Amino acid sequence: MHHRVGVVGAGQLARMMAQAAIPLGIEITVLAASATDGAARVVPNVIVGAPDDPERIRELARRVDVVTFDHELVDPDLLEDLERDGVRVHPGPTVMRLAQNKRLQREMMSEADLPSPAWAPVGGLADLERFATDNAWPVVLKATRGGYDGRGVWVVRDRDEAETLLSQIAAHGTEVLVEAYLPLDGELAVLVARNPSGACRVYPATETVQRDGICHELHVPARFDPSVARKAEDLAMRIAGTVGSTGILAIEFFVVGGDVLINELAPRPHNSGHWTIEGAETSQFEQHLRAVLDWPLGSTDLVAPGVMTRNLLGPDDGSDPFVRIPLALRAADAHLHWYGKEARPGRKIGHVTARAGSLDEAGRAANAVWSVLMYGE
Amino acid sequence: MHHRVGVVGAGQLARMMAQAAIPLGIEITVLAASATDGAARVVPNVIVGAPDDPERIRELARRVDVVTFDHELVDPDLLEDLERDGVRVHPGPTVMRLAQNKRLQREMMSEADLPSPAWAPVGGLADLERFATDNAWPVVLKATRGGYDGRGVWVVRDRDEAETLLSQIAAHGTEVLVEAYLPLDGELAVLVARNPSGACRVYPATETVQRDGICHELHVPARFDPSVARKAEDLAMRIAGTVGSTGILAIEFFVVGGDVLINELAPRPHNSGHWTIEGAETSQFEQHLRAVLDWPLGSTDLVAPGVMTRNLLGPDDGSDPFVRIPLALRAADAHLHWYGKEARPGRKIGHVTARAGSLDEAGRAANAVWSVLMYGE
Repeated sequence: MHHRVGVVGAGQLARMMAQAAIPLGIEITVLAASATDGAARVVPNVIVGAPDDPERIRELARRVDVVTFDHELVDPDLLEDLERDGVRVHPGPTVMRLAQNKRLQREMMSEADLPSPAWAPVGGLADLERFATDNAWPVVLKATRGGYDGRGVWVVRDRDEAETLLSQIAAHGTEVLVEAYLPLDGELAVLVARNPSGACRVYPATETVQRDGICHELHVPARFDPSVARKAEDLAMRIAGTVGSTGILAIEFFVVGGDVLINELAPRPHNSGHWTIEGAETSQFEQHLRAVLDWPLGSTDLVAPGVMTRNLLGPDDGSDPFVRIPLALRAADAHLHWYGKEARPGRKIGHVTARAGSLDEAGRAANAVWSVLMYGE
Repeated sequence: MHHRVGVVGAGQLARMMAQAAIPLGIEITVLAASATDGAARVVPNVIVGAPDDPERIRELARRVDVVTFDHELVDPDLLEDLERDGVRVHPGPTVMRLAQNKRLQREMMSEADLPSPAWAPVGGLADLERFATDNAWPVVLKATRGGYDGRGVWVVRDRDEAETLLSQIAAHGTEVLVEAYLPLDGELAVLVARNPSGACRVYPATETVQRDGICHELHVPARFDPSVARKAEDLAMRIAGTVGSTGILAIEFFVVGGDVLINELAPRPHNSGHWTIEGAETSQFEQHLRAVLDWPLGSTDLVAPGVMTRNLLGPDDGSDPFVRIPLALRAADAHLHWYGKEARPGRKIGHVTARAGSLDEAGRAANAVWSVLMYGE
């Protein structure tokens, strides 16, 4: 006898859900693009198929009690069909549609009077020039969905750059919006768990350190004034209620002059919450499973005074840190999470978390293990 | 690419090893007696076969880097054959032989001058009477291997009882030994991890509360004078070195008048160590995997000031606590571990662990969740 959760997608998030599912007596079935996906390697119940293949998603739905997701690459219309047929889908199609479209997110925030950067839709160069006149150059252009060539965000310094970029963007058929370029003090991410019955729990705000748009480090508690973290946590709870999220909702914030502005949201366990596996009383993965099953939620309290997570990206020299795992575990007491993926330069292949009596101490331990994994020393 | 560990047996210990293996990038293959065994339900790589079937064990050995165990129901001679063929087997045949035979354990302890209860081998009634004269009635009879009708330990009050029991025991062909009956203050268990290179780490001593020979509760730190726990931890380290264990070695102790006497040992992750999953920096299951792979060992420090684990046995009314999981999670913040087994009265089907600022607080939380699982309230 098992409670049964189906996961569309079989990357590291599904893999870590599978780990959290074992002690809870929850049986995970994944819909994997490939049988060698990270999660497909560790669960017995795997359906191989594309996440936008209605037949495969329906097959998944038939085999489980509730359907959830490892990513947002699914068709919300299909999710609506499933719901109409009585399938429990969490997060639901409305939240999924919001997650897939940055413009819808900005419209929702403006309507709900949630603090976010100045923004405008962009039909052409004139819209962009008007926005820059009202605000200032540079401005930030964002693809509302996806992007291209692996990029979806561009900082644009002046009219000439804007003209060149907009023509390239138009050639790709990409819809964009413009946002004010903000002098960031840093960034925060907040996870909120909400179940279909409306119970809600927020995790302590996480400081995320990003480089080139990729999250490299997580620090908890965040190294900002506690009032800043509190503002983000309060807003995150409001947003979860406003959008009616189910499962984990991750909200990213910009910190600007002691205030927080909403960047974007993702309705699933999130890279910014990986520290919760060892650092919080209930991991985001257990919490997500409990939430989508409409179970009671667990405590989000910190387990130690300081928790630091370092993301592991494939090294530029093409080496695979996998072979250095035993060596790395000698360097310090930290917790390794391997995603079961082949190392390619820049690809997220794992993370390392340490918890300790202080954030500094946790940072030293996580960095020591990370450094051996990356460079062998 | 995965490091590969094969586990003979697919009960809850293998299931919890499988959970610990995921983040370490270790692929688990189990040799399961049945495809519905607890661990067989959660790993993709399952061989179905008897643990004493040489063909199936050899098949397992071919598919992995190292072979380890969920139980002791294997033939040490077969393990010796495997070692001769170059298979890495941890624990090895010598330790496995010791684990299977209480008389060998007592002889080892006597030779190494390790503190244990007075004991003697029993050939017949005369041996038993001589022992009782030298010590006192009652005495404790123990089957050296297994036992029968689910029992392996008998308290014998006098010569008449001894005569009756010995004739029954002889009829079953069971070999026994006799031990002094001790006025116990309580019991302790200590886990030691040791890898083939000889690195060794000991966990804080666990107080075990036993009823009818079944472990019901674990309390860490143990509620004895710290000097008593320290004695047990020191002895455990000595024993691990003496027997050359690899992986986790669990040693059970009697506490008598401020002293500790060795009861018995088990060379694998152990029921008395389940609190380590949330309560120690490195769980016994991760530690066992690291040890059998000859990786560096992790910290055995406590994560919280108090950790309490309550074992979940199938209720006498025949009900299945599985259906009460969601309700139980509402009762308190504690961690549920479900073994994926059908509930039968008295069968170990899971456990609940809480960690908190004090042992009392942890106990209240674990008991609250346990109570709902058992009785619905």
